[in-house]
Amino acid sequence: MIEVVLVELKIPENIGFIARVMKNFGFEKLVLYNCNVSKESYITAAHAKDVLDKAVKVENLKEYLEEKNLVVGTTGVRSRRVERYIRRPYYTPEELREMIKGETAILFGREDYGLYDEELKLCNVIVSVPTSEEYPVMNVSHAAAVILYELSKGKFEFEKEEIATQKDVDRLVEYFEKLMKSIWFPEHRIGRMKVVLKRAFGRAALTKYEVDAISGIIRKTLLYLEELKK
Amino acid sequence: MIEVVLVELKIPENIGFIARVMKNFGFEKLVLYNCNVSKESYITAAHAKDVLDKAVKVENLKEYLEEKNLVVGTTGVRSRRVERYIRRPYYTPEELREMIKGETAILFGREDYGLYDEELKLCNVIVSVPTSEEYPVMNVSHAAAVILYELSKGKFEFEKEEIATQKDVDRLVEYFEKLMKSIWFPEHRIGRMKVVLKRAFGRAALTKYEVDAISGIIRKTLLYLEELKK
Repeated sequence: MIEVVLVELKIPENIGFIARVMKNFGFEKLVLYNCNVSKESYITAAHAKDVLDKAVKVENLKEYLEEKNLVVGTTGVRSRRVERYIRRPYYTPEELREMIKGETAILFGREDYGLYDEELKLCNVIVSVPTSEEYPVMNVSHAAAVILYELSKGKFEFEKEEIATQKDVDRLVEYFEKLMKSIWFPEHRIGRMKVVLKRAFGRAALTKYEVDAISGIIRKTLLYLEELKK
Repeated sequence: MIEVVLVELKIPENIGFIARVMKNFGFEKLVLYNCNVSKESYITAAHAKDVLDKAVKVENLKEYLEEKNLVVGTTGVRSRRVERYIRRPYYTPEELREMIKGETAILFGREDYGLYDEELKLCNVIVSVPTSEEYPVMNVSHAAAVILYELSKGKFEFEKEEIATQKDVDRLVEYFEKLMKSIWFPEHRIGRMKVVLKRAFGRAALTKYEVDAISGIIRKTLLYLEELKK
């Protein structure tokens, strides 16, 4: 079970946005430590009002975290504060995915100061989203979106269209060959054209559906040509 | 070159948030088609005001996209609209990463309706962030954060601490063995304890630094014990 723990967020909109991304990625348990929830939070939460309503308020963060199996801190400011406490560098959201175990709490800190040193000391892992040196600090709700997106990978998958195999591509190229033959395309160039088409279509990673669609057009053209030639 | 094209965004804050995540992930070129930029955009942009200032406004979206090598549409609403036009299902942000080529434009549409059918027809690829069926639609700026995060992978990397090898772990276990021997730990249990420690420490994926830290404490303990026994 992964839960999101917000630590003294002051901007109500951020809390709502985080509730929304949580629901987007299938996470439900929100824990609030001294956060400023207001009606603005409910606006940015949109259809994730239930996440806000069910949120658990905790008074003592240290005590609350004691029962967790893994406590994860997040930071946007690298190189400055964190290193004083934990020499081991930051983990990426991708690396975090492999570390999750049991009851895991992920902490997001204040908009201005992030997590305090005392809070970072409660964490087993410090995670940061790899960002540009020029402007490393993300808005907390966007950082949460990225981290929860990464942790939800594999949970929600799209139906995949089948990709065409060489055989499918060859079939398509054969239709083009027939077409070339029936329109007096210079015969000595047909071989070369087949290579061009095989490479172009193959590289395009067409789906079987797309191969069928293009084949269909060429086939219909061939039938029409036959009809005309009668 | 990847550019972000916003299509008729009405909420000024979203435009600023997107400018910010762009800069966070090292993207600079923002293109606005009929967007509602206001002073609120500059607030949410935070230190990415320059991205907003340099944004290019286009009047004719179709014409603008004609020179691009790849045009990517994004959608939060799957299964409904898009499928009427493109049977091939949605690509994930991860899959998009492998498709980028040349001048690539990524379109994000209106907060309420997303991209219109006419706009989706201009796209070569439709990307969607895999989200929960229960609440699939993300705020546009959070969807942009996830997609740009994925596209920036490999661009910004953290310095890695070296992970301990078996040899490091064995060295650590040996210190514990010495400790057990010098404190009258039952000798017939030492062998078993060594296995327990080897497994526990090995599984923990300790860094070399952490192994050194723990070894240091045990070594100092051994020295102190020796001193006392004199």
